[in-house]
Amino acid sequence: MLLNLKDGNKIEVENGLNAFDCIKNVGDGLVKTAVAVKIDGVLKDLREVISADCDFEIITFQHPDGREIFHHSTAHLLAEAVKILYPTAKLGIGPAIEAGFYYDIEFDHQINEEELDKIQATMKKLVKKAERIERFELPKKEAIALMEERNEPYKVELISELPENEVLTFYKQGDYVDFCRGPHLMSTSAMKAVKLLQITGAYWRGNDKNKMLTRIYGTSYDNKEALEAHLLVLEEAKSRDHNKLGREMKVFTTDENVGQGLPLIMPNGAKIMQTLIRFVEDEEERRGYVMTRTPFMAKSDLYKISGHWSHYKDGMFVMGDEEKEEEVMALRPMTCPFQYLIYKTDLHSYRDLPIRYGETSTLFRNESSGEMHGLIRVRQFTISEGHLVVRPDQLAEEFKGVLDLIYYLLDCIGLRDDVSFRFSKWDKNNRDKYEGEASEWEDVQAKMKVILDEIGLDYYEADGEAAFYGPKLDIQAKNVYGKEDTIITIQLDFMAGKKFGMEYVDAEGNKKSPYVIHRTSIGCYERTMALLIEKYYGALPLWLMPTQVAVLSLTDRTADEASATAAALQRAGIRVKLDNRSEKLGKKIREAQLEKTPYMVVIGDKDVESNVVSVRNRKLGDIGQMSLEEFIAKIQDEIKTFNKEV
Amino acid sequence: MLLNLKDGNKIEVENGLNAFDCIKNVGDGLVKTAVAVKIDGVLKDLREVISADCDFEIITFQHPDGREIFHHSTAHLLAEAVKILYPTAKLGIGPAIEAGFYYDIEFDHQINEEELDKIQATMKKLVKKAERIERFELPKKEAIALMEERNEPYKVELISELPENEVLTFYKQGDYVDFCRGPHLMSTSAMKAVKLLQITGAYWRGNDKNKMLTRIYGTSYDNKEALEAHLLVLEEAKSRDHNKLGREMKVFTTDENVGQGLPLIMPNGAKIMQTLIRFVEDEEERRGYVMTRTPFMAKSDLYKISGHWSHYKDGMFVMGDEEKEEEVMALRPMTCPFQYLIYKTDLHSYRDLPIRYGETSTLFRNESSGEMHGLIRVRQFTISEGHLVVRPDQLAEEFKGVLDLIYYLLDCIGLRDDVSFRFSKWDKNNRDKYEGEASEWEDVQAKMKVILDEIGLDYYEADGEAAFYGPKLDIQAKNVYGKEDTIITIQLDFMAGKKFGMEYVDAEGNKKSPYVIHRTSIGCYERTMALLIEKYYGALPLWLMPTQVAVLSLTDRTADEASATAAALQRAGIRVKLDNRSEKLGKKIREAQLEKTPYMVVIGDKDVESNVVSVRNRKLGDIGQMSLEEFIAKIQDEIKTFNKEV
Repeated sequence: MLLNLKDGNKIEVENGLNAFDCIKNVGDGLVKTAVAVKIDGVLKDLREVISADCDFEIITFQHPDGREIFHHSTAHLLAEAVKILYPTAKLGIGPAIEAGFYYDIEFDHQINEEELDKIQATMKKLVKKAERIERFELPKKEAIALMEERNEPYKVELISELPENEVLTFYKQGDYVDFCRGPHLMSTSAMKAVKLLQITGAYWRGNDKNKMLTRIYGTSYDNKEALEAHLLVLEEAKSRDHNKLGREMKVFTTDENVGQGLPLIMPNGAKIMQTLIRFVEDEEERRGYVMTRTPFMAKSDLYKISGHWSHYKDGMFVMGDEEKEEEVMALRPMTCPFQYLIYKTDLHSYRDLPIRYGETSTLFRNESSGEMHGLIRVRQFTISEGHLVVRPDQLAEEFKGVLDLIYYLLDCIGLRDDVSFRFSKWDKNNRDKYEGEASEWEDVQAKMKVILDEIGLDYYEADGEAAFYGPKLDIQAKNVYGKEDTIITIQLDFMAGKKFGMEYVDAEGNKKSPYVIHRTSIGCYERTMALLIEKYYGALPLWLMPTQVAVLSLTDRTADEASATAAALQRAGIRVKLDNRSEKLGKKIREAQLEKTPYMVVIGDKDVESNVVSVRNRKLGDIGQMSLEEFIAKIQDEIKTFNKEV
Repeated sequence: MLLNLKDGNKIEVENGLNAFDCIKNVGDGLVKTAVAVKIDGVLKDLREVISADCDFEIITFQHPDGREIFHHSTAHLLAEAVKILYPTAKLGIGPAIEAGFYYDIEFDHQINEEELDKIQATMKKLVKKAERIERFELPKKEAIALMEERNEPYKVELISELPENEVLTFYKQGDYVDFCRGPHLMSTSAMKAVKLLQITGAYWRGNDKNKMLTRIYGTSYDNKEALEAHLLVLEEAKSRDHNKLGREMKVFTTDENVGQGLPLIMPNGAKIMQTLIRFVEDEEERRGYVMTRTPFMAKSDLYKISGHWSHYKDGMFVMGDEEKEEEVMALRPMTCPFQYLIYKTDLHSYRDLPIRYGETSTLFRNESSGEMHGLIRVRQFTISEGHLVVRPDQLAEEFKGVLDLIYYLLDCIGLRDDVSFRFSKWDKNNRDKYEGEASEWEDVQAKMKVILDEIGLDYYEADGEAAFYGPKLDIQAKNVYGKEDTIITIQLDFMAGKKFGMEYVDAEGNKKSPYVIHRTSIGCYERTMALLIEKYYGALPLWLMPTQVAVLSLTDRTADEASATAAALQRAGIRVKLDNRSEKLGKKIREAQLEKTPYMVVIGDKDVESNVVSVRNRKLGDIGQMSLEEFIAKIQDEIKTFNKEV
């Protein structure tokens, strides 16, 4: 039979060989780097037997799919080592993740860092042993019997939930057997460089009603140099991590008596958020938005109309028990229905539209504890949320207006080049998740695609990522570890009008149902602030820095003059920190540098004499003397340029 | 025996007369106006028998105590009339209130306005009948039997809860008998002018688990002219009521699907609040406050430390059941513990104090439905809350600083002359309500009194109004109906440091516990906004008005010029509404006047020719032509003067 290779070559091989043996025919060196194959575009195990002509692509560690399989096999290697060292440990699940893998395992005791080193050493021995990794299949009943015999209750639970006549696949290396769909490497020998990174806890199946298992994170590479390079990047990422840096900068703190996912924003963080919030509110108002302040909770009645009660209740904080109490309240996960009610207080003519509602809105999501992370994934957050009520003929223009606002704001905070665009569509095979008819979905998605293409946006499409009420444009950004999150979203809603009885009177006097554009402009302030801290390593653009200028007295003699300078800067609207301590100037400068203060103003005897200030820039160092008025004008001008480098 | 009258006269009367007969001796005319007496300063029923020399003060309707008794007797009159018309009606409670009375009654059906008129007519007949009102006493057992016989289950419930050997007082007029402590009038004849005002619902004992009773409100006077005058004031008050005016002005709305006490602030209200909030935040920062943004909920663990869990839980929104769940969360009723946790993230030297934390904070109070009112009493509100952590030697100065800030803010919104000051102290006879030792309370109250007297504040003292953790200075204001509420409070807390382990290191290196001053500066923004709407009849000071200038085109020809004028004003930071409709100028002006717009700018052909604008002031009318630049300078200047009349 004939293998059509990616480079255009065709190779004749014996019929019925497995992929691994086929690759030997392509070139002996390739066997060492092959992780899997794609046969006619479908990812397959190297053990796959081929019996007809096909397109044949060799997948190596360099390919994202190859890397995922490689990491997944390393998760198995970890489990094998654990079972050797701790035969009574019980295995949960062990998937590949972005840049590595983890395995959730129940140990008899809390394992420590030292034990982690031993596990890693055992893994390395198993790599040297070059154990063969084998695949086999079992019917469900026998699969359960095997896992019961091996005392793996979590695996038994997972298998029990599968259909009766499904044939299940297992992988085996040495004495270790795992229930797994694969694909996997052919041998442990390929995993030349492995590193276990972290131990945390994780509830079985992410549910806090279940047992807490031990989660071991790790990563692996096909060579040591690549691993070393990755660990360096990771080290750098850790030092930029807002969850570490943000605490050091006194942007936020957390407290176990308050609870997970509920950061306390400290004065430095509150100043950044206040600056951002006022800026966004003012810019939105300039663009014709009107602001609302709506309550953070409502009776379940409201969420039943909006659909959140049936589609989103598990993610909400509910107060009271529906079966016992007449009135059940819930904290809001979104602002939409509240702004609709404000729309409904008045009659609207077609001439009144579009109406653009904005709100600096607090929302609540009952995230499970495993998902929470610093300021990026929290249970309470503040968002620039808004809803545009528009006529069908205004949809395209208003959508573009929203995107223009978002571009402007992203420019001002310097994140515009860091985002990607995802056109999130419904999943027609999962109808229960969505409201409305298929024809409506196809119609509104087609309309949205036209708008996106008109704008010439470079987007990718994702099925099954729509909101339950309509398709979205999601603006995605990665955190310092490469994890992607949606930071901004624009959503088309073709059902809100009908559900809430929102209307407008058209030119002919007929009542019509408007479209609604749900949107945020700068996203959740907490999350955006976290991304900014990571991007700028804490040295935010001047206009956002909690302290913009440090005023340093050179000696005690100039303390009064330094105080007066600080006061003058403050009166000019500049955020100042005064350092009049009896310390050496070098120390004062060093500390201000460490705090990433953009400007330092030194006041010495000579400065006082000549009626000037000596200015230092954090990056450029000494930039000379100037009059206080000149300095104020300079810094005010730089604040107005937003994210531009100073 | 000898009665010492208030005017200094002494009257000799027969020993053993009751007060009513004594008054006859003072002067026959007085008997008609007497409502009660004070004997040696203690308020007594006119039926009180006097058997020794005493100070003897006649209390008439003009005296607040007299008015209260008068109103209370009218509540009885209402109940008597109801029982005549609806013999199966069951009586709840019927107290006097500010400017009137109410009675909560269970009817067999929902009564309407027409029936209310009939009840009032019956009351008037009973006044004409001049029924004698009699007082008698019964031991508890017989009292219960009497009320059971008369089919008054609510009275039975109230009596049952009293101590066993208490002797209970009853009042009787005609066939009507009521369980009541008194005092009461001697006859129905005095109630010359009665008016029933309103029907609402009220849960028995204010608990929404109980039955909803019908509450009938009314008022009464000793002459018709006074009643008429009062009804006029009431009419005026109603038209100023923010709960009516605020809706008309599109400041807020409510919705039954959201729930009671949860107003939706509409764009006009949000603009007023945004203006106030930014102004207060900036002023506080100028005065050395640092702002925080802390979460709106926490685990019960935090409230157990703060004491809210044992002293305040009933007023909180709790999520989850302590007996079933490991983690119970609650929405916060106060910001204190959150700011304490921020204090605790760092070590503090005595040189770091005072630290002044401020926050534009959202709080939640689970008020019962009967207590809610417009924007004044709500379940979620926004407050300028703050906590000052101070050394003992800084207490007086910081307290004065807080009061100075409050004075300044009240001046800026024009409420300074509308407030009174209440020094709220603990109640030593109700120790369970308070934390700490008696000696600590006496000490801190004494300290506070010294501060208040040093300031020379004109305050009154109120026992039992302290917070559970310390005494307060409450700044009180009345709404349009005369109901008094606390709008601002300053509280001294001598226990927070110990409870939360807050410390500072003194000059000798010893760890010390600081004092905490809890305070708001402008109060709850929603409530303050409501009071402003009522005070100014909706015509808020220029700097707070959602629309400051209406730009009116005289003809369609000047529409473009009007648009350009509006845009120029907006760029200058002035809030503008553009009216380019093809309507007569008169109509446009009338509508802007109705919306209480402070300034109107008319753009006609001649204005365009001469490059000026014609300006109208809401109160002064036409104030002439001026260049746009002059007008902008004028209005910007007026905005800066805050509440000053323009």
